[in-house]
Amino acid sequence: MIRSGPTICAPATGHGGAIAVIRISGIQSLSVCAKLFLPSDKNIKLSDLKGFNVVHGDIISGDEIIDDVLVTVFRSPHSYTGEDSVEISCHASPYIVKKILELLIKNGAAPAMPGEFTQRAFLNGKIDLSQAEAVADLIASSTSAAHKVAINQIRGGVSDEIASLRSGLLNFASLIELELDFGEEDVEFADRNELKSIIIRVKALADRLADSFLAGNAIKNGVPVAIVGKPNSGKSTLLNALLMEEKAIVSEIPGTTRDSIEDTIVIDGIEYRFIDTAGLRDTTDVIEAMGIKKTYEKIRQASVILLIDEVSDDAASINQRAEAIRETIGGTGKRLIILINKTDTALKNRLQLLEKEIKPGEKEKLLFISAKEKRGLEELRQLLSDVVVKKRLSTDSVIITNIRHYEALLRVSESLGRVLEGLGNRIPEDLMAIDIRQAIHYLGEITGEITSDEILGNIFSKFCIGK
Amino acid sequence: MIRSGPTICAPATGHGGAIAVIRISGIQSLSVCAKLFLPSDKNIKLSDLKGFNVVHGDIISGDEIIDDVLVTVFRSPHSYTGEDSVEISCHASPYIVKKILELLIKNGAAPAMPGEFTQRAFLNGKIDLSQAEAVADLIASSTSAAHKVAINQIRGGVSDEIASLRSGLLNFASLIELELDFGEEDVEFADRNELKSIIIRVKALADRLADSFLAGNAIKNGVPVAIVGKPNSGKSTLLNALLMEEKAIVSEIPGTTRDSIEDTIVIDGIEYRFIDTAGLRDTTDVIEAMGIKKTYEKIRQASVILLIDEVSDDAASINQRAEAIRETIGGTGKRLIILINKTDTALKNRLQLLEKEIKPGEKEKLLFISAKEKRGLEELRQLLSDVVVKKRLSTDSVIITNIRHYEALLRVSESLGRVLEGLGNRIPEDLMAIDIRQAIHYLGEITGEITSDEILGNIFSKFCIGK
Repeated sequence: MIRSGPTICAPATGHGGAIAVIRISGIQSLSVCAKLFLPSDKNIKLSDLKGFNVVHGDIISGDEIIDDVLVTVFRSPHSYTGEDSVEISCHASPYIVKKILELLIKNGAAPAMPGEFTQRAFLNGKIDLSQAEAVADLIASSTSAAHKVAINQIRGGVSDEIASLRSGLLNFASLIELELDFGEEDVEFADRNELKSIIIRVKALADRLADSFLAGNAIKNGVPVAIVGKPNSGKSTLLNALLMEEKAIVSEIPGTTRDSIEDTIVIDGIEYRFIDTAGLRDTTDVIEAMGIKKTYEKIRQASVILLIDEVSDDAASINQRAEAIRETIGGTGKRLIILINKTDTALKNRLQLLEKEIKPGEKEKLLFISAKEKRGLEELRQLLSDVVVKKRLSTDSVIITNIRHYEALLRVSESLGRVLEGLGNRIPEDLMAIDIRQAIHYLGEITGEITSDEILGNIFSKFCIGK
Repeated sequence: MIRSGPTICAPATGHGGAIAVIRISGIQSLSVCAKLFLPSDKNIKLSDLKGFNVVHGDIISGDEIIDDVLVTVFRSPHSYTGEDSVEISCHASPYIVKKILELLIKNGAAPAMPGEFTQRAFLNGKIDLSQAEAVADLIASSTSAAHKVAINQIRGGVSDEIASLRSGLLNFASLIELELDFGEEDVEFADRNELKSIIIRVKALADRLADSFLAGNAIKNGVPVAIVGKPNSGKSTLLNALLMEEKAIVSEIPGTTRDSIEDTIVIDGIEYRFIDTAGLRDTTDVIEAMGIKKTYEKIRQASVILLIDEVSDDAASINQRAEAIRETIGGTGKRLIILINKTDTALKNRLQLLEKEIKPGEKEKLLFISAKEKRGLEELRQLLSDVVVKKRLSTDSVIITNIRHYEALLRVSESLGRVLEGLGNRIPEDLMAIDIRQAIHYLGEITGEITSDEILGNIFSKFCIGK
């Protein structure tokens, strides 16, 4: 059942370029456009056209020709929104785009709200909610991994996984509720052991999906990496070497990094945003320096911290600096990589000594590099890649990138945890049923089978106009 | 005769937005696209499709789906370029656009040069050169007047006028050359008086068109207006009142306009770019202040100079300031408007006295205003509009906006001037014929009937990619 809303219009393309596209959707799309469009072939009547047809002609305002354009017609339900739709392809002049929108509005169309086209596609069942959200992600994707995850989600990857979780639970719920219907007769339609194994399986799946969010978020938003170290330890040189271009100001004079510099590299399709800290230049006491607010902030923003030390530093002070960072990051899951720089200036036994005396923690890494001579950088890239992503995902598997989905999955897992507990304690079926219903509800929120105007408003208001 | 070049591709839309369009044109457009496009309806074969049809499907790279897209097919000669063409409408992700272009290039298309699509349209006779140039103007148009002039030119307005000039001359030339063929027989096929009147008429038309360039340039590029005056005479207040928003910093403290500020208003579809000068703040001696390099520069850049004085200034010093500006602008055709500001602080007889004692030049205007109380601003807008445009054009007549056309028309006029002179002096027909041929040549350059690779390269290299 397609519902056709009032006719809406919006520019669908960005500023600049040679051509611009204006989108119109709704029950009166064709009749509104017919009022301002004069086909070159006078025998063509816009309202008689079938979908997927293109017509050449003029946009007119009274006697004045505004532009010559191509008009593409889409017929319900075979359009993005599911409604009758029109796309006008005009010259990309800001004046022309504005004028055509004015004419459309004058003739009965309303300006579209952000995401309103996609919202209509969702309301008409053309896509589910997680697919709609992936459309915005797809448009914003700038790396191959982000793109792959978004297109997988549009293709229904996430939806399929959620649907399989949900159908497992629905089956379970109906059996439990059957038992409740029989009230005090104390029958068990659902084999408790079998049910337990289903719940365990579903919970494990929900947990795996929720777990993928960390990696998914890294894919979607990039991985912030803080470079921390004493003045002149080679922070800027390392950053430059990694960026392979001179974006930071490098000099032999300590403290010449003028401001926090942020730049990005892409490893295996994941974007790493480097945050170079200038906060340590005012003091040589590193523990005190660590207290500098800016450095603390950078460490808090980062997922990976690169502590850069020199091969001439003594092991005790390096361990001390590492410990200071450990205290700052606590148990937050941030990763520390200890880099010993300037290996080009040291003998082999010096390196061996440091290797013996520096004790990286369990999830930490120690790496010897020469930023100046670009030694050890490939290993560093590999470490960055491994630490954040490799172990947790392959981009072919379904990955959660949306915090709304993540939070819903956490709630699913919590509810199912309570069900498992209940199964162990033989708590009443009606309480168990509530938790299962709750898990089903949260799963439904992801795909939009269960939804509220508030959730929808929240999601679509973040879209761009024209989508 | 349509010539189909090698297949080219380029993005046609700007950055951002919800969708992006990629253009492909050339003999292999459909076969190249078929290699990366999988229609949703498996029965559809891209290469079998007629023009003006749209197909939904996926862009694929091996097994990987890059995006789901709409593909529009155009068949030679019914396309913008005249060649077989395809437009791919995809999601506006920079990654996707780049990836699709890479795939097109990998499968045999070449990246398009700036303006190459329009150049092909010209080479295939779909549009003439002045129309092609108007396409770029149309895209750049930001006001109603600029848009109207550009669309008139695309519709052949300029071309029609040029054609009528040219046919008049061609007729004349053939008669003269007939006389030359008869050599020494001394026959006159062309009635000298009639011919003279034709040449006069054609030259007058060419002159009128060339004259329209000043206005045309104002329409296309806007009119730069410099506001010049002593510190605290109300420059910023006037600018703000005109812009009707607080873009400049207004204060009672002299010299608080921190930098040259540029802003625009639109009167009757023409853009006026105001240049507020901060250059006078370092000195109170205005004649010396006039010497400040920056103010000189602004005056040189401007077409209209607003000299702003206060009602409390004595008439002699106002006349002195006006004279200093007159000396700067010389006979350049720049217009001076003398504004007496702060009329709210003066009695009527003071204004009458000033009116008597200030002597604006022939093409100058004197106007009493109160920027603070927004008095006299409507008159100022009217003056700006009149001074620059009203007398010289109505936007319905054909207007030259292109410096290349302007220069060609000047040469046409020169050549015809020599012909008229020749007719008076009875100079030999063969010399006259050369001048007439030259005029015809220059007219042909405007529409592209006579052209060189250099001219074409020059014109189309200024286009954006994808047009």
